Amino acid sequence: MNTRIVLVETSHAGNIGAAARAMKNMGLRDLALVKPKKFPHAEATARASGADDVLARATVCDSLAEALEPCSYAVAASARRRTISWPEYEPREAAGVLHEHNREGRTAIVFGPETSGLCNEDLALCQALVCIPSDPEFPSLNLAMAVQLLSYELRLAQPEREPTLSQAREVPLATHKELESFYGHLEKVLTESGFIDSRNPRHLMRRLRRLFARSLPDQNEINILRGILAALWTDKNR
Amino acid sequence: MNTRIVLVETSHAGNIGAAARAMKNMGLRDLALVKPKKFPHAEATARASGADDVLARATVCDSLAEALEPCSYAVAASARRRTISWPEYEPREAAGVLHEHNREGRTAIVFGPETSGLCNEDLALCQALVCIPSDPEFPSLNLAMAVQLLSYELRLAQPEREPTLSQAREVPLATHKELESFYGHLEKVLTESGFIDSRNPRHLMRRLRRLFARSLPDQNEINILRGILAALWTDKNR
Repeated sequence: MNTRIVLVETSHAGNIGAAARAMKNMGLRDLALVKPKKFPHAEATARASGADDVLARATVCDSLAEALEPCSYAVAASARRRTISWPEYEPREAAGVLHEHNREGRTAIVFGPETSGLCNEDLALCQALVCIPSDPEFPSLNLAMAVQLLSYELRLAQPEREPTLSQAREVPLATHKELESFYGHLEKVLTESGFIDSRNPRHLMRRLRRLFARSLPDQNEINILRGILAALWTDKNR
Repeated sequence: MNTRIVLVETSHAGNIGAAARAMKNMGLRDLALVKPKKFPHAEATARASGADDVLARATVCDSLAEALEPCSYAVAASARRRTISWPEYEPREAAGVLHEHNREGRTAIVFGPETSGLCNEDLALCQALVCIPSDPEFPSLNLAMAVQLLSYELRLAQPEREPTLSQAREVPLATHKELESFYGHLEKVLTESGFIDSRNPRHLMRRLRRLFARSLPDQNEINILRGILAALWTDKNR
């Protein structure tokens, strides 16, 4: 399956090993670790319990952006955030959406640090949230358990049949890198034109990222948007 | 929920703690331990991580028969056994069946020892098997992970579960009229800036409409987009 599991700043080596085992049980092999606190580590290997090949081939990265470079669609595992208008899926829905996107490119599920969860900057690199239903009185799952549940839903949702043509897109979705280049261009133009509030520049960009992320732009569409930015704002405007 | 989780002859105290946490996350509280190798144990408490109340109230039994005494229906978590003619469910089906039986009495899910699984005598005390789908090349899940998956399916199948809040928004979606005003503004700017191909002006606008329509913009977002257009393209640009 073409879905990468990304663990961001994991504190406990045992969780990394347990996540690797959980992935392999469900047929997933692509693990990326962003700034793990302890890795490689004997406890990770012990808890992997036969999935040490997944650990050995894990990609270690310095940032979430780097871990997402080959991916065109990422969902962030997260607690429910009622205040943010962001596509928010249950695991079963998310698995279906991920398989849809896997037809056109690679996808990722991103898990934040054990205690704090993902920061807003990292959330902004993802296109949707997936929230595991749990008891509101004791909602916080162990990290590797969350990896297990989402890997399981991915396995269950694996399409056995060929996709219908009407659902397929002609043009590939924009990759993470292409999206980031677009957001960079957009931010530059909005800053130079004075539209971005310099007291709180990140807020507006987060809103715009959410807006565009929801529409899942393809490569042509990103080219059109960048063409528009170039046409409306050139050096002569400054 | 009226389902007891029964762990038979568990070797690793950590698995007992992790199972307790997994249960509590999903709203289950009734844990029975049949001849645990080490219990109570510091590692169980550590891995329970806030579910120590479930551990403290766990029933410790000398036999599976004793653990199942209050229950009228039990399923055994098991690897697939094609040779046995026994009702065999996937987790999702099993959860439905358990809820059916919970209307009339108490139910149980039984998990065998980590390495050997349940013996035939213990299997004979259960009414059905539940098999977690996994990769045939690496099928054996960690015990607490199996508890997590089945507890999760029980929670999802709960008849009284509150509806998902997925995609609830604070701000109303843009109305048709607001969207049309935005598209009109966009077309004007793109025409004046020379970006729209005058031989085929409708084509580009159709693509842009599709792109924005997919993201279902709310009223604030449309205001931001119009603000951007106004900031980047004013009469002075002409």
